[in-house]
Amino acid sequence: MTTTTAPPPAGSAAAAWFDQHQPLLDRALATIRTREYWSAYPESPSPKNYGENAQAQGKTALEARLGTRFELAQPGTVGWIGAERSPFGVAIGVTYPQIDQDALLAAVTRAQRDWAAATPKYRAGVAMEMLARINKASFEIAFATMYTTGQAFMMAFQAAGPHAQDRGLEALAYAYDAMSDVPSFALWEKPQKNEPLRVEKRYRIVPRGIGLVIASSTFPTWNSYPAMFADLVTGNAVVVKPHPNSILPLAITVEIMRGVLAEAGFDPNVVALAADTPESPIAKQLATRPEVGLVDYTGSSSFGTWLEQNAKQAQVFTEKAGVNAVVIDSTDDLPGLAKNLAMSLSLYSGQMCTTPQNVFVPRAGIKTADGDASFDDVLGAISKAVEGLLSAPERAVEILGAIATDATLERVKAESAKPGVVLASKTLAHPQFPGARVHTPLIARLDASDEERYGGEMFGPIAFVIATDSTEQSLELAARGARSCGAITAVLYSADPAVIVRAEDFAADAGVSLAVNLTGALLVNQSAAFSDFHVTGANPAGNASLTDAAFVANRFRITQTRTVVPGTASAG
Amino acid sequence: MTTTTAPPPAGSAAAAWFDQHQPLLDRALATIRTREYWSAYPESPSPKNYGENAQAQGKTALEARLGTRFELAQPGTVGWIGAERSPFGVAIGVTYPQIDQDALLAAVTRAQRDWAAATPKYRAGVAMEMLARINKASFEIAFATMYTTGQAFMMAFQAAGPHAQDRGLEALAYAYDAMSDVPSFALWEKPQKNEPLRVEKRYRIVPRGIGLVIASSTFPTWNSYPAMFADLVTGNAVVVKPHPNSILPLAITVEIMRGVLAEAGFDPNVVALAADTPESPIAKQLATRPEVGLVDYTGSSSFGTWLEQNAKQAQVFTEKAGVNAVVIDSTDDLPGLAKNLAMSLSLYSGQMCTTPQNVFVPRAGIKTADGDASFDDVLGAISKAVEGLLSAPERAVEILGAIATDATLERVKAESAKPGVVLASKTLAHPQFPGARVHTPLIARLDASDEERYGGEMFGPIAFVIATDSTEQSLELAARGARSCGAITAVLYSADPAVIVRAEDFAADAGVSLAVNLTGALLVNQSAAFSDFHVTGANPAGNASLTDAAFVANRFRITQTRTVVPGTASAG
Repeated sequence: MTTTTAPPPAGSAAAAWFDQHQPLLDRALATIRTREYWSAYPESPSPKNYGENAQAQGKTALEARLGTRFELAQPGTVGWIGAERSPFGVAIGVTYPQIDQDALLAAVTRAQRDWAAATPKYRAGVAMEMLARINKASFEIAFATMYTTGQAFMMAFQAAGPHAQDRGLEALAYAYDAMSDVPSFALWEKPQKNEPLRVEKRYRIVPRGIGLVIASSTFPTWNSYPAMFADLVTGNAVVVKPHPNSILPLAITVEIMRGVLAEAGFDPNVVALAADTPESPIAKQLATRPEVGLVDYTGSSSFGTWLEQNAKQAQVFTEKAGVNAVVIDSTDDLPGLAKNLAMSLSLYSGQMCTTPQNVFVPRAGIKTADGDASFDDVLGAISKAVEGLLSAPERAVEILGAIATDATLERVKAESAKPGVVLASKTLAHPQFPGARVHTPLIARLDASDEERYGGEMFGPIAFVIATDSTEQSLELAARGARSCGAITAVLYSADPAVIVRAEDFAADAGVSLAVNLTGALLVNQSAAFSDFHVTGANPAGNASLTDAAFVANRFRITQTRTVVPGTASAG
Repeated sequence: MTTTTAPPPAGSAAAAWFDQHQPLLDRALATIRTREYWSAYPESPSPKNYGENAQAQGKTALEARLGTRFELAQPGTVGWIGAERSPFGVAIGVTYPQIDQDALLAAVTRAQRDWAAATPKYRAGVAMEMLARINKASFEIAFATMYTTGQAFMMAFQAAGPHAQDRGLEALAYAYDAMSDVPSFALWEKPQKNEPLRVEKRYRIVPRGIGLVIASSTFPTWNSYPAMFADLVTGNAVVVKPHPNSILPLAITVEIMRGVLAEAGFDPNVVALAADTPESPIAKQLATRPEVGLVDYTGSSSFGTWLEQNAKQAQVFTEKAGVNAVVIDSTDDLPGLAKNLAMSLSLYSGQMCTTPQNVFVPRAGIKTADGDASFDDVLGAISKAVEGLLSAPERAVEILGAIATDATLERVKAESAKPGVVLASKTLAHPQFPGARVHTPLIARLDASDEERYGGEMFGPIAFVIATDSTEQSLELAARGARSCGAITAVLYSADPAVIVRAEDFAADAGVSLAVNLTGALLVNQSAAFSDFHVTGANPAGNASLTDAAFVANRFRITQTRTVVPGTASAG
């Protein structure tokens, strides 16, 4: 790290925090170069990792917040709002500060000044301490996420807790690395006839402006932490605009971050919450404010595209929707294939941006280790595997979670009435939550010609098994879908190395991440921090990737000062 | 470098070129971290650097092209066009391929496939060889630049030759560095209860699509080479759309690049020329073609903003216009100040994006080493220094060059008729070129309240010395101009360290590069490759900087393939 050392605020813990967390940061910096396996925050909720009563304490802490005001002491608070509805039927009833945009953004802009003036090192110390405290609150954030998003507990813990924290640290490391490449000072000595011309150059990292982070309803922290930490460490203040149905996990996050800022002697308004309700959305207005220099968004394609085209004053990073495909060419392990896909389709009821939707299978069938399998054999194996996986309701609800939105329920209902359904979506009762809306995946059999059915995103527990003329046509249709609607993941099953190479080329052209022959524990849905690049930015599913250099390099600018060294021959 | 080693085309010289040029690349990679003085290509046209008859040979070679067809053997050539008018009155008369966009872009897209499949290393080898050959053609390109842009010979040689080549190498190094940070392979081993889950991950650098480079009329190569080389080395094909009045320097460049590509066994259509005329402009159409994934532009604010808002399918990088300021607070060396500013204002008749326009001076005068100087003393010193610098026509023309466009002449004429002119623009006869349009700078005295006169860009030999209430007001007006119109450079003269610190803060807020107390050889106009960040991207003067990580990180995407290692416990 070579940037200038400016003192942190008097008495600040920032320097000590940097020293304390430096080993973790160094490990993160090393891992983003190898992209090998590493995790900074344990993904198992085991008491060995988080303490004996951590889960119960987290649950108690979270439940104590239900039905109360979430006080944040933010300037520009003009009322209290909140309309979260739990897919599990839990009564949330939390209200959050209703913001006056002018007043809040003015305070955040003021707070940004000292934050930007602190060096990357001190900002990193503060951000790493934020992550450490967020990690300690993993159970509380997990229950907040579970109750608001409909994720089952284990997913809520891992995805909203340690996995999100890992993603935040990954982005922090990329941003820190990018700033570290810029020297703070250079003595520029150009040879001349007599004495060299000597010029002192000072380089300064300057922020882009407030970073607005617009979160998704389904993965409020996992999709937001990368932007929040990348923005912060590069000197920008952050305003978080959660989805109106999952404010709580991010409100807790913001509360922790504001506490750490205050403790370090910074204005806590470096991080603020901007909550809204479905009836009075504020994202469009916020995203086009002149104070906002960065916008990060995860959610629908339509609003993501609106932001890309309208938030002109800002650098916009999006993760939007997509249609993910599976291409089945041949397999050595049809039962393993079916089991793996069944889990991928069922996990969180298909409400992941990485869930496969379209499964392309040649109508003439495929080769397997046990001989030929007809199209119906493959379709049957997948359907039976889903049925088997979800046959015991108490196990099923821990995989399926609950349906987050009415729109998803409507989609399932509409698809249920259409032709080709081979596995109907069933309603399950949740043993713990009587109000939970739990529905098993629907699988329909379609033909390659039914593009109007499968050609768009059907978010939720809906999958299509589609008969094609050949694997070549399957690859073409999968790639076409990715190019037109976007896609984040693709899976290929093939025992033929030539087909694998061909699929890699298709996937690279379509800008989609490919997984090959998944028959075991690895699911295509999983995207591992420090290793998997999530979204490529190379198709309509988004214009950014978690996390590459492009995700961080535009979050700051460099200004410089040149001063001729007095007394050199050319100075006067 | 860790990306996959794919073989270059059979018999390709790419690998040998990489080895040959690796020392230069390594030096460039080291220098972008220190931003200390270094130049890869000698800036002196001395025979010691370029050979005994290089200048004469270059001139002969260039003049042999005048009045002829510039053959490039490009597909989609449907006619011959060209309308370059020399500011020196030289008859250019060169015609270039008139393109059929469908046919040319289809050929370029086809050519891009093998280019993208080659590894960064081989692409870098080819690109470095291109630079080496372009360097050998520096004199020919210098005369082409001189005749088409109106630059005097020495500037044309340095800026269009070695300085542009240095900038190209700098961007190449940043791009290579960014790709080098992405591993081509990772074995991801996640600990499990029994055996770890092992996943092989392959990462692939994929191009964004054709890189369209739209060049400026005044610095056709200096502003284009960074984008061209960054695009190429990241796997994108390049289409160069020169300004219709300075096609020749880029046509020569494209010819050399196509030759190197062919010699390396690549399709030469990886680089193509798209010339046009003022009557039939093609830039808007080209910039919005779906094949185009990257657009780099240098030129007017209006067209740059149009591109930012309309070339939605592409990543757009712009350098637009600005209003550069000088703030004079106090000085130890008024004569040095006046001489330095006189040179800055006169160089290439103020037709540089780095030329100061607005000189702010407190109306109460300033402190100098020789006592107080009134506002008129300062204004008089600057005016006299300009007069003195340009008193001998044969010397003056080597500084001023010639006026590139009618629009600039019209501006000078219009300003000449307005009140406040203290130094009139004079017409000079050029000893070698009777048709050259040579005009000395105009200086007008304005008041801070005359913002409608000085508040916009007056490109060309026009400068305003503006009376302000105080240095504080000077800084505010300078910063306001930068924020509203953009600015690339600013100069402060002050003997007071507190004012210098204050000006640095103003400059950082306004996103402008600051130079302090220039009284000797260093001119604010100069922007040194490998050291000075040219344009910050932090004000309306442009959205990109030469060269930082943000300039290269978005020129490629990463796709990945995950394959579970067969036989591991979790594989099935």
